Amino acid sequence: MVAMCPITGVAQQLSPAETDPRVLGWMEGVPPPPDKLIMQPDSNYFSFPKLRWTVCHLRELLPTEQVSRGIGAPVPFEYDLDEAAIDALAFKPMGSQETMTWQESLVANYTDGLLIIYKGKVVYERYSGCLNESGKHGAMSMTKSLTGLLAEILVVEGKLDDNARVSDIIPELANSAFGNATVRQVMDMTTGLAYSEDYSDPEADIWIYSRAASPLPKPADYAGPDGYFEYLQTVRPEGTHGDAFHYKTINTDALGWIISRVTEKEVTELLSERIWSRMGAEQDAYMTVDAKGTPFAGGGLSAGLRDLGRIGLLMLNEGAINGEQLFSPDVVASIRGGGSKTAFAKAGYKTLDGGSYRSMWWLLHNENGAFAARGVHGQTIYVDPKADMVIVRFASYPTAKNALIDPTSLPAYQAVADYLLVRD
Amino acid sequence: MVAMCPITGVAQQLSPAETDPRVLGWMEGVPPPPDKLIMQPDSNYFSFPKLRWTVCHLRELLPTEQVSRGIGAPVPFEYDLDEAAIDALAFKPMGSQETMTWQESLVANYTDGLLIIYKGKVVYERYSGCLNESGKHGAMSMTKSLTGLLAEILVVEGKLDDNARVSDIIPELANSAFGNATVRQVMDMTTGLAYSEDYSDPEADIWIYSRAASPLPKPADYAGPDGYFEYLQTVRPEGTHGDAFHYKTINTDALGWIISRVTEKEVTELLSERIWSRMGAEQDAYMTVDAKGTPFAGGGLSAGLRDLGRIGLLMLNEGAINGEQLFSPDVVASIRGGGSKTAFAKAGYKTLDGGSYRSMWWLLHNENGAFAARGVHGQTIYVDPKADMVIVRFASYPTAKNALIDPTSLPAYQAVADYLLVRD
Repeated sequence: MVAMCPITGVAQQLSPAETDPRVLGWMEGVPPPPDKLIMQPDSNYFSFPKLRWTVCHLRELLPTEQVSRGIGAPVPFEYDLDEAAIDALAFKPMGSQETMTWQESLVANYTDGLLIIYKGKVVYERYSGCLNESGKHGAMSMTKSLTGLLAEILVVEGKLDDNARVSDIIPELANSAFGNATVRQVMDMTTGLAYSEDYSDPEADIWIYSRAASPLPKPADYAGPDGYFEYLQTVRPEGTHGDAFHYKTINTDALGWIISRVTEKEVTELLSERIWSRMGAEQDAYMTVDAKGTPFAGGGLSAGLRDLGRIGLLMLNEGAINGEQLFSPDVVASIRGGGSKTAFAKAGYKTLDGGSYRSMWWLLHNENGAFAARGVHGQTIYVDPKADMVIVRFASYPTAKNALIDPTSLPAYQAVADYLLVRD
Repeated sequence: MVAMCPITGVAQQLSPAETDPRVLGWMEGVPPPPDKLIMQPDSNYFSFPKLRWTVCHLRELLPTEQVSRGIGAPVPFEYDLDEAAIDALAFKPMGSQETMTWQESLVANYTDGLLIIYKGKVVYERYSGCLNESGKHGAMSMTKSLTGLLAEILVVEGKLDDNARVSDIIPELANSAFGNATVRQVMDMTTGLAYSEDYSDPEADIWIYSRAASPLPKPADYAGPDGYFEYLQTVRPEGTHGDAFHYKTINTDALGWIISRVTEKEVTELLSERIWSRMGAEQDAYMTVDAKGTPFAGGGLSAGLRDLGRIGLLMLNEGAINGEQLFSPDVVASIRGGGSKTAFAKAGYKTLDGGSYRSMWWLLHNENGAFAARGVHGQTIYVDPKADMVIVRFASYPTAKNALIDPTSLPAYQAVADYLLVRD
């Protein structure tokens, strides 16, 4: 089976079925044969198709910190499955005149897990590739939205002033580009930072950052920054704070530092205390760490599919879950209010035209008031208040860019919302 | 407060209170100051007093694999606390004429967690140092007893022949010292292996093994074995199999390979499937892995205190817990039958005189029929069938050797058993 690109009609090199990690046998066998090993640091574990195994096994390659669910009983979801009807839903991908079914869209997007919650009940749940119901999957940049949520909670509670200068909270960042930015500019990623993610340039900042962030011991001749916090102090300014949306992960690492400084807790600990241990989670989550034990606030979370469903419900229901209010409704109201559309438009996200970014959440500003957490390779928590619906997708799409995944995802989510709204 | 050695009366250099990781502030602060960092590979994270932090944080330094509890509700313990009476119990440490109280023994042994279960209910539970009720602690060589338990289950179920030669199951080991040993000799550690643990000799096998087992990338000029399984193939014979008990961790790594080959499952997966997901565990456990993802069957487990209490109850109650029989009573009967006392006596364990070792469990062969899982720095699961009692201790004693910890531990356990037997 060879999957076709739904936009160009060109055959993709390797289909989801061909790259299923169980089919390819990564790390299977006792011991795995040499050509099936995925190891640090040689075998490029985040390249396709290896990444289809790696996204479920990050802790086996990297040191991590637990995000504890506590030790009480989880609160299971109620179910009202409607999977056959949803599988058959048809929609037109962005830029296409051909229709595609929901079921086909799961394949097109190399989906590892898909959960749909409607009126608080699970109506659809599927696992594929490396994932099952008791497994965890890399959340990638959806991590940012949880860091942003924690920050917004602190702002609403008056514990963090989003108008403060970063240097007032983190003096160590005074001489960096972050120093004279406001906390809000960091939260909404409108800072002006010299930080290039040109992967083809070996001198690009992303590589300096990656070397700093790696938990592996540094080479003897290494003289660069060690860890997220040292790296952040080296970031130089570029452009004007507040002028435009620039999606740069280092903002979230800075925000992680800010909320940890304010609360005297690591992001993992705060996330457990405020959210994970109070939402009826079934599984602990975890975050990767740098060599000094700092959690990767910008992308390090791995979690279970249904637990991210609980996060989606919390956002949908303005901080309430299982009859408990975990944080003020003002938190979600602030996020749903959105960021600057003008600043966002300058970033030129074609699949998110008219949107904005606030507190590390993506606002679609569509009729349904939808907003989302998003991560590379197809991760999303998609919250649709009008349809009373949450969709969570874990995926291992061959390339990182969500611009390639949105055309077969965002219209599909809308089709499910449309169906549920007329169903009952 | 300076602790005295209960045997010599000499003041120990740093007391438990002085070396409490919360007092020393290891890894505290955002970021931790340089002198409070515990990092790979430089800062000797397993040396005292750093180890008092490290024993609760191994996953933050090393890649790990989950031992899943599943996603259902845990089965909480019932409580019938009797802590004041137990704290006041007095006993004479081995070789001492002075009495010591139970409470004093906790301090003498740098105890991080202590659980006593009597007639199925928790009568005593304490946390200290780095541990709390939702934390996990390194089990050290208690891991061996879980690997041995899994092997014994497979033997009783007819899935593993303990009379088979290791080479019949693992052909890769045919040319090693393990090849012509029986599975039973591996399980009972009566193999004859050339393997020295002389830490002062830089050419000692323990160092070659440690380099092989490290999950960190190997140096460019490294030409030795990579991983547990490659190392095991290099082990040369010394002496005669079956002749004497030689406590060598590599037997357990070989046993892990054997049970994984027989079941086609990693030890982590089998432990979850057969035990952890079925005993009402509150927390997932985890195991450290080598660079190829092989779990450290000889010592890699970290778990919660009460979950190891559940393991103790399973052993006490011959495979039953929460009204379910997880494995045949014959498994515990085989272990309690003990190994060769003659072979054991040759190893000269002064604090375990008259004991034996079977399927990676330590048999005391005392009047109470007590047997135990034991790990360096003071870890134990102590099962006393006569007293219907389980004691679990996590500790971070300054030196590894349990021979220094037994004098203030084994008589203390007996004193609790004696008290409970007459109490009701």
